[in-house]
Amino acid sequence: LIDRQESPYPLAEPGSAAQVMEQFRQPIEDALRRSLDGRSAGIYDMLRYHLGLDGSSPSQGKALRPTLCLLVCEALGGDWSRALPAAASIELIHNFSLIHDDIQDGDELRRGRPTLWTRHGVAQAINAGDSMFALATLTLRDLRPLFDDAIVVEAMSVLREATREMIEGQFLDVGYESVPEVTLDQYLEMIRCKTGALLRASIEMGALLADAGAPLRHRCRRLGEAIGSLFQIRDDMLGVWGESETTGKSADSDIRRKKKSLPVVMALANARQTDREALLSTYAQDSLSSADVDRVRGIFDSLEVKMHLQQLADEAHEQAMKLVDTINFTSEGRTELVALVNFLLERDH
Amino acid sequence: LIDRQESPYPLAEPGSAAQVMEQFRQPIEDALRRSLDGRSAGIYDMLRYHLGLDGSSPSQGKALRPTLCLLVCEALGGDWSRALPAAASIELIHNFSLIHDDIQDGDELRRGRPTLWTRHGVAQAINAGDSMFALATLTLRDLRPLFDDAIVVEAMSVLREATREMIEGQFLDVGYESVPEVTLDQYLEMIRCKTGALLRASIEMGALLADAGAPLRHRCRRLGEAIGSLFQIRDDMLGVWGESETTGKSADSDIRRKKKSLPVVMALANARQTDREALLSTYAQDSLSSADVDRVRGIFDSLEVKMHLQQLADEAHEQAMKLVDTINFTSEGRTELVALVNFLLERDH
Repeated sequence: LIDRQESPYPLAEPGSAAQVMEQFRQPIEDALRRSLDGRSAGIYDMLRYHLGLDGSSPSQGKALRPTLCLLVCEALGGDWSRALPAAASIELIHNFSLIHDDIQDGDELRRGRPTLWTRHGVAQAINAGDSMFALATLTLRDLRPLFDDAIVVEAMSVLREATREMIEGQFLDVGYESVPEVTLDQYLEMIRCKTGALLRASIEMGALLADAGAPLRHRCRRLGEAIGSLFQIRDDMLGVWGESETTGKSADSDIRRKKKSLPVVMALANARQTDREALLSTYAQDSLSSADVDRVRGIFDSLEVKMHLQQLADEAHEQAMKLVDTINFTSEGRTELVALVNFLLERDH
Repeated sequence: LIDRQESPYPLAEPGSAAQVMEQFRQPIEDALRRSLDGRSAGIYDMLRYHLGLDGSSPSQGKALRPTLCLLVCEALGGDWSRALPAAASIELIHNFSLIHDDIQDGDELRRGRPTLWTRHGVAQAINAGDSMFALATLTLRDLRPLFDDAIVVEAMSVLREATREMIEGQFLDVGYESVPEVTLDQYLEMIRCKTGALLRASIEMGALLADAGAPLRHRCRRLGEAIGSLFQIRDDMLGVWGESETTGKSADSDIRRKKKSLPVVMALANARQTDREALLSTYAQDSLSSADVDRVRGIFDSLEVKMHLQQLADEAHEQAMKLVDTINFTSEGRTELVALVNFLLERDH
């Protein structure tokens, strides 16, 4: 059995989000490596590069989803180390979607490094994403000797349904790029699918593998939904107000890239005639100048968009906290989960 | 239970390949429709269009893989109608690969109709392929009440491994487009993965769902490999010598598209210095003129490439026939399978 590592980060306070994530970091990385063990065809080198497992990257992603899965499993009295195949599988599904998302958005940087399609072309990046999806389904199979068949079957079902929903959300997201305006309700439904489904599944999977019954799993699903909303709201805020050095993404903001993310959706929902028309005509252009970007930022400021979005994030955070209190987590597990949820509210990357 | 339909094709002789395919056509189409039942999000309309289930197309694909699955199941004494979720799932995996393949190859026509990426753009076509993959995994789950868990688990494993291998083959195929020369061995290994894996899985799955033991399933896998080779050799021949009216593909031959398929691979393997250099310099150009295409055809003719490929196809056909004789198929099933294998040797579409 794998021991949770001592944190090598002296600054990570006990019970802090950094420490929680650090504790699970190495086991998750090892599980991802195992899922690629013996896979020597060239396509798997693309996957190792993307996952930061080839030594080319000093840091992998946050591994938020697998961390949530393992943490919830442990906090409900389960043996988190047995849940590692599920955690790895979830992270692989997430990364399959990132590889295809980068192609669709034309994003050239991810975690501070060139994206796969910029290195290998669109055709091979499509294959790499497909391969990551296939690998996820193979990895989940490793639950089999560790859990009863009924639980394994249910875990597969949870991941399959979440993947389906995630792709439906991705379809909505791409579609929204070519319509003039997206309403707040439409946008929230989209992120509920695109981001929420897999985050929800991460938490539900953790509960399932801790042998939680249906009512508890249902509460965990709702917690996952709240955490998913919180995560995506902050993510969209960082896309406009974040620093590329901390986010690892392109220095071009989501405004410059005309991304119809939450800030502009919220601005359009709140703007009066003049600002609405200015926003719509600006986003209708083929590309935006620095002056355009500044003008949009000015409109966001005058409409207090950032404050409104922070309110939305606060609401999602509060809902998550209320749901945490309905679930009988271990004391230590609860502390760690709360630290992680607080981090999602405050993160700058 | 679903009855096999009477053939509406008066010309389909009893026991002919056309009749075999026609017998299973409607049940397969119904199973594909069931897998999309209740899926109302817009992305599923893309899938229905691609599959020819939206009324926009007079004909679907040949459904070769699900037909082989059902036919082998029946020919080994199984109840083919219970295997329909597996057959549909295989066809969905195949079509997921076609959607992404069309993007990668820039193909504008498939079965005589515009491909998804030409209608909806690359980004949404990527999503549609992903969604088809996800749907395939959901559809296979429908085997569950019909078969023992051990068989369902094994069926999932067979499909997962075949999908992984198919994507590895697709990676090789795309990679070969950007190297000056592909050897015959490299090419045959590529098609063994890209096309062979899923055809092999189709036949193995049919055997598995007829409750075949491991030795019989092994022979069925080998039969699937031979049929896969036969299929792809003929497919590559049709890409150069087929008529677009019958294939439903672009009128541009694989030569014009500089596709490094079997004809040019075989030509390079057999050519002497002058022809080799002419072929390599022609294929090194950005695009080919009609004169270039004619010159390449001339080289193919002088090297008797078509005849050599037909020999390869004949060998694969002979091997398939020998393997058929090692398997204890029902008399009627054997006749139908032989008719189908003969069709693959002779088909013009």
